[in-house]
Amino acid sequence: MQRTFEDWALELVKAGQILYAQGMVPVTSGNLSARLAPDSIAITVSGTHKGHLTTADIMQVDAAGVSRDGRRPSAETGLHLQLYRRFPDTHVVLHHHSLYATLISQSIQDRVVFENYELLKAFPGIDTHATRLEAPVFVNDQDIPRLAEKVEAYMDAHPRIHGYLISGHGLYTWGDSVETALKHVEAFEFLFKCELMKRGVSPP
Amino acid sequence: MQRTFEDWALELVKAGQILYAQGMVPVTSGNLSARLAPDSIAITVSGTHKGHLTTADIMQVDAAGVSRDGRRPSAETGLHLQLYRRFPDTHVVLHHHSLYATLISQSIQDRVVFENYELLKAFPGIDTHATRLEAPVFVNDQDIPRLAEKVEAYMDAHPRIHGYLISGHGLYTWGDSVETALKHVEAFEFLFKCELMKRGVSPP
Amino acid sequence: MQRTFEDWALELVKAGQILYAQGMVPVTSGNLSARLAPDSIAITVSGTHKGHLTTADIMQVDAAGVSRDGRRPSAETGLHLQLYRRFPDTHVVLHHHSLYATLISQSIQDRVVFENYELLKAFPGIDTHATRLEAPVFVNDQDIPRLAEKVEAYMDAHPRIHGYLISGHGLYTWGDSVETALKHVEAFEFLFKCELMKRGVSPP
Amino acid sequence: MQRTFEDWALELVKAGQILYAQGMVPVTSGNLSARLAPDSIAITVSGTHKGHLTTADIMQVDAAGVSRDGRRPSAETGLHLQLYRRFPDTHVVLHHHSLYATLISQSIQDRVVFENYELLKAFPGIDTHATRLEAPVFVNDQDIPRLAEKVEAYMDAHPRIHGYLISGHGLYTWGDSVETALKHVEAFEFLFKCELMKRGVSPP
Repeated sequence: MQRTFEDWALELVKAGQILYAQGMVPVTSGNLSARLAPDSIAITVSGTHKGHLTTADIMQVDAAGVSRDGRRPSAETGLHLQLYRRFPDTHVVLHHHSLYATLISQSIQDRVVFENYELLKAFPGIDTHATRLEAPVFVNDQDIPRLAEKVEAYMDAHPRIHGYLISGHGLYTWGDSVETALKHVEAFEFLFKCELMKRGVSPP
Repeated sequence: MQRTFEDWALELVKAGQILYAQGMVPVTSGNLSARLAPDSIAITVSGTHKGHLTTADIMQVDAAGVSRDGRRPSAETGLHLQLYRRFPDTHVVLHHHSLYATLISQSIQDRVVFENYELLKAFPGIDTHATRLEAPVFVNDQDIPRLAEKVEAYMDAHPRIHGYLISGHGLYTWGDSVETALKHVEAFEFLFKCELMKRGVSPP
Repeated sequence: MQRTFEDWALELVKAGQILYAQGMVPVTSGNLSARLAPDSIAITVSGTHKGHLTTADIMQVDAAGVSRDGRRPSAETGLHLQLYRRFPDTHVVLHHHSLYATLISQSIQDRVVFENYELLKAFPGIDTHATRLEAPVFVNDQDIPRLAEKVEAYMDAHPRIHGYLISGHGLYTWGDSVETALKHVEAFEFLFKCELMKRGVSPP
Repeated sequence: MQRTFEDWALELVKAGQILYAQGMVPVTSGNLSARLAPDSIAITVSGTHKGHLTTADIMQVDAAGVSRDGRRPSAETGLHLQLYRRFPDTHVVLHHHSLYATLISQSIQDRVVFENYELLKAFPGIDTHATRLEAPVFVNDQDIPRLAEKVEAYMDAHPRIHGYLISGHGLYTWGDSVETALKHVEAFEFLFKCELMKRGVSPP
C-alpha cells in the first residue's frame, strides 16, 4: 500500500474511462475518489468530464474535505468522506450516473431489493443466491450535509450495505480497491437492468 | 476565436463521426453547422452521410442562407440560421435524428417535460435538479419557412429553451462550441431514454 | 460498371462484415448477392458465416440459379433471382436476420406500415414524411418456390415496394449498389425499432 | 484432434474474451471447459474474470473432477462433467450469465419453448423453422450434485436438448468445438431476446 498520489490518480483516470465507455457518467456527471492515507483523499475536481480525465483533474482533500491545493472538489465530497469514516477497509468510492441507476431510482421508492440472483455472490460476505440485498433510495438534495444525514441514519440501522441510490441521480458504491469498486458497479448495473426489465416484461 | 473555416469544418466532421457512432444520424439524416462570423455559417452539404463527412462536405452560407460556392446546403438551413439570429453566443447548431428523439417526438405531443433529474445541471443556467425543463415538439413539415415560424413563435413565448423536437424527425440543440452542443445532445439523449423507458416500465 | 467478379465479391464480403458487426446476421443466417451481368449473379455459398466471409465464400450462379462452379448457393437464391428479374436497376440484394426484423415479423401480421417518419426519405422516390410505406410480411416456408410465388403475387399488386419480411426470419431489401442496399437495411432497421418500441411504449 | 492443453486453453481464453465483450459474463460469473481426452478436462479456475483470462487461469481436472494441480476448479465443474459423460461428441461446454439468460430464467418457469424461428436451424439436427425446441429452467441451487441430479433426470426424459437455464443464473450450452458452442450461445441469446421482447411488446 505504498502507492503514491500519482498512482491512485492514474487508477481513477482509468476508472473514469471505463465508466464513460459504458455510458455510466454522461456529460460531466459522476465523481470518483480514493483514500491514500487516513487524512488524505484523492478526488475528482468539480465539473470535470469523467471520460476525459487526466491526473491533473484529480486533487487532494483532507478527511474533513478541505482542499489541499485551493481547487474545488466534487460537490458531493461529503458523501465520499462519510463512507471512508464508516468503512475502514474502503479505499475507493465511485459515484456513477447511468441510465439504469437513474431510472430505477425514479421508478422505485425507498429501496430496491435483490433476491435469487447468482450474481449477488459478487458482493463481499455473500456466498449464495438465496439471500436478500437491499439498496436504499434517497430523495435527491442539493444540500449535501442534509442528504448525508439521511444516509448516515440509514447506515446506522442497516449495517449490511454495498451501495445506495439517489433519486434521479445515480449510485454510490465502494470497495477496497478500484477493481473491487468497479466490480460492484458492474454487479449493481446488471441487477438494476434485470429489475427494470422485469417490470417491463410480464411473465406469461 | 481566430479559427479558420477549415478548423470549424474539421470540428463538424468530428462531431458527425461522434454522432454517427452513437446511432444518432442514421442513413443521411441530420445536419450540423457552425457560425464562423456574423455573416458566415459553415454547414453540411445536402444529402451527405454524417458519419463519413470530409471537410469537402462542409460549405459556407451567409446569414441569409445564400450559398457561397453554388452548392446546396442542408434543406433545413433556415432552422439553423434562425437559432444564430436569436442567440448571439451560439456558435454551433446540431440536428440529430436518433431512435429515441424520433420515438419521443412521436409518443408525446406538444412538449416533453423533464423534472427531478440531476443531469438537468448539464444545461447552462440550471444548478439544481429541482427545476423543470421543457422541450417543445413541433409537427413535421417539409416547408421549412412555415416550420421556422412556429419555432419562432414558441421561442418568443418561452425564452428558456435548450432544444426542440420535430415529430418523427429528431432534435435541434446548440451551444457556444461543438463540445457544448455535443454535451447537450448527450444530456437530451439520456433524458429521452429515461422518459421513454419510464413509460414502458411500470413502477411496482 | 466494369467491375469484375472479384470486385463485387469483395463488396459483399464488406457488407457481410458491416451487417454482422451490427448483429444483423447472427450465426450463419442471412445471404447477400450482386448482379454482375444479366446472366451472372454473385451470391454467398450456403451455410457461411456472413461476418467472416472471404471472397472464396462468394460463388456465381446464372439467371436461373444454376451454379457455375458446382458449389451450393444460399438456399434462398430463388428469392434473390426473383428480385433481379423484376427490378432491372437492382444490382444488390441483401437478406438479413436481425432481432428487430425477426420480432416485428412475428408481432405484426400481413404488413408493417410506416407513416410520418422523416427517414422515409431514405427510400428512392420518397421526398416527404407525409407518405405511407408498407412492408409485407410473408409466412415462413422452407419451400422457396412456393414462398417466391406469394412474393410475386404481392409485388404484382403492389409495385411500390422497397423490402419484405418473412415471419421469424428477417428482411429482404435491395438497391442499385451495395451502398444503397445497406442504406435501406439501416432505414428499415430504424423503422422496425421505432414501431416495436411504440408498441411497448404507451403514450401518456 | 492432436491439440495440446495449451491449444485448448488458448481457445477458452479467446472464448472468454468474446463472451465478456458481449456482456455475457459480468464480474466473475460464467465458466468454460474443453475435453482434451476422455479423462482430461480443461476448465477455468474458480473466481476468475472471464474477460481477462490467461492460459494460467485454465486448469486440468480428470473425468471425476479431481484437480490435477491442486487448484480449485469452477464450483460448477460437476455440471460440465455430466455433459461430457452424456454426449460423447461434445468437446466444449460454456456457461454464461447474460442479462437475457438471467431475465428469461426468472420470468418463465420450467421451460422456455422456441417455435417458428428460422434461427432454430443453427442447432444440429434441425432443418426447418417448423419445429419446437425446449430449454428447461432449473431452480438455482448452491448444492451442485443435487442440481446435477435434476438436470440428469430431465435429460433422461428429453434426449433432444441443446442447452438449459438455471434460474437467476444463466445458460449451459455445448458443442463439438469452441466455434460450435459459441454459435449455440449466439443462437440462444438471440432467441432469449426475442422471447423477452415479445412479452414486453404487445401486438396491435
